[in-house]
Amino acid sequence: MATTNKQVILRDYVTGFPKESDLIFNDATVDLKVAAGSNKVLVKNLFLSCDPYMRIRMSKPDPSTAALALPYTPGQPIYGYGVSKVVESGHPDYTKGDLLWGIVGWEEYSVITITPYSHFKILHTDVPLSYYTGLLGMTGMTAYSGFYEICSPKKGETVFVSAASGAVGQLVGQLAKIMGCYVVGSAGSNEKVDLLKNKFGFDEAFNYKEEKDLNAALKRCFPEGIDIYFENVGGKMLDAVLLNMKLNGRIAVCGMISQYNLEEQEGVRNLSSVIYKRIRLQGFVVFDYYHKYSKFLEFVLPYIREGKITYVEDVAEGLEKGPSALIGLFHGKNVGKQLIVVARE
Amino acid sequence: MATTNKQVILRDYVTGFPKESDLIFNDATVDLKVAAGSNKVLVKNLFLSCDPYMRIRMSKPDPSTAALALPYTPGQPIYGYGVSKVVESGHPDYTKGDLLWGIVGWEEYSVITITPYSHFKILHTDVPLSYYTGLLGMTGMTAYSGFYEICSPKKGETVFVSAASGAVGQLVGQLAKIMGCYVVGSAGSNEKVDLLKNKFGFDEAFNYKEEKDLNAALKRCFPEGIDIYFENVGGKMLDAVLLNMKLNGRIAVCGMISQYNLEEQEGVRNLSSVIYKRIRLQGFVVFDYYHKYSKFLEFVLPYIREGKITYVEDVAEGLEKGPSALIGLFHGKNVGKQLIVVARE
Repeated sequence: MATTNKQVILRDYVTGFPKESDLIFNDATVDLKVAAGSNKVLVKNLFLSCDPYMRIRMSKPDPSTAALALPYTPGQPIYGYGVSKVVESGHPDYTKGDLLWGIVGWEEYSVITITPYSHFKILHTDVPLSYYTGLLGMTGMTAYSGFYEICSPKKGETVFVSAASGAVGQLVGQLAKIMGCYVVGSAGSNEKVDLLKNKFGFDEAFNYKEEKDLNAALKRCFPEGIDIYFENVGGKMLDAVLLNMKLNGRIAVCGMISQYNLEEQEGVRNLSSVIYKRIRLQGFVVFDYYHKYSKFLEFVLPYIREGKITYVEDVAEGLEKGPSALIGLFHGKNVGKQLIVVARE
Repeated sequence: MATTNKQVILRDYVTGFPKESDLIFNDATVDLKVAAGSNKVLVKNLFLSCDPYMRIRMSKPDPSTAALALPYTPGQPIYGYGVSKVVESGHPDYTKGDLLWGIVGWEEYSVITITPYSHFKILHTDVPLSYYTGLLGMTGMTAYSGFYEICSPKKGETVFVSAASGAVGQLVGQLAKIMGCYVVGSAGSNEKVDLLKNKFGFDEAFNYKEEKDLNAALKRCFPEGIDIYFENVGGKMLDAVLLNMKLNGRIAVCGMISQYNLEEQEGVRNLSSVIYKRIRLQGFVVFDYYHKYSKFLEFVLPYIREGKITYVEDVAEGLEKGPSALIGLFHGKNVGKQLIVVARE
């Protein structure tokens, strides 16, 4: 038995900011069968996640980014994290009706190959299922592993988070508050700043687009300096942060969204501060921490159930809204975690 | 009893490259007495050390560098590391004739105040006394603590050292060889490159001034990439290194001599590599490791005595040669550790 399968295709490699026209729709068909013993699983995609790293996959092959992510293939569907339901399984660990999150195509149905940590079975459904695209999925694990493993946080320390209302940032801020830190976030609109202060409990927040001088904004929020910077944006913000770090400060470099669409990266000029202040600046990728996923769930689920950790999602309805939702991410149009509903069940 | 005391004075704060005329001589007098119980010690200075960080002290006060070093006072003698002999002591732990190394003025005699780790008594004199300005002093400790504490080296890893024939670099390279690493160094003349390969045992070396493309030079020396970069120069070299680091690479940021004389720092554009390759880039300052000095001596002295660690010094004779020796450092004129002989005994 076969059915139609709408897909989102990368037209060609992208230079500069991606446009909606870089992504085109294709009506394919999919056979609703997988061979027994093939280890393959046919899933119906329910939610898809829009994440900044996907921009890196839209560029032509580049040895410097190959260690993180290989490019999409022009003419083929793009792929990313999603929440899916098993339709048929050739893998002994999965059966029809199972829910899982992991990498799937941007399409209605995907045939996936299970490899270690490629997909995670969803066992807790008393929380919103869409959370597994973000808070309880890759971005939540990114916040958790980056904050606890890279930042070495201590109670009472000062923490700055950029892109703080985004999928990762909003959880980092809440984790830092749970730890007893003083937390400041930056974001790109007053609506987002309001969320940071009034929904996520940040101590202070500012709209970086309204600050003439980022160095002055940070000095205002951190008169004694910054112990921990959770870096999501790069460029000018990093330069201003370097001037405001405290002795023995830590910078967890999670992303640099301000740089992904530039043909030439901005130069960071204040790096000698890492010497003067003995700063540790460390890049990390969530893949390296997936073996701790069940520990993460044990930690975070009780906080979610008690309402002590909250999460804001920006939901686009329908796969046809996918391209505009993904491209909007690079213009900061999303408020909270951007995801797409492909199907409700 | 008093005697004349020639001194080297900072005329005024320096902008850009320092010139010899920024340092002037003064004929002071010094009383050859210190009060008993004053904790002060009068020393005769034998050797003075020329170190890149001294440039930072020549600039006007700057909050970003204050955590490392406060500026010199215009009109007063500059100071730095040196090897000295006690003439008279008001401190119970020091007596006439003791040798020590630590911070002293650029002058013939200094009155020093002993604080924890400010000065170290020299107990091993079967090795050249001048070594305590470098190999067995601050710069040796810098190489040792930076390499072992920050680089986390493992046998068989690939190591790149910039300014590799300098006071710190030459020891880092030899420590890396002892560890069983593959070691490449860069330096600014063919004479220095020859030293790296034929005296210090580096596996490979290149003259960065003769390379049109630093990225290509590094790819040639490290076809599989760099595990560890010991950073002494900053700027363009760091940018090229970032493109050539391996997954989970470490960068120990010891110094950025290429930047100290610039009015605006060069921008480093390839920082997003720290994410893609999970790089740790960490600044450090030797002061934080002085409690391990005796452990360092235990480690390094046997290698020196057996001729397994060697050291090249560039010796300027006489305090009057001090300004040209120090300024020459910023033009790469020195071959090996630059020091000044003020007196032989």
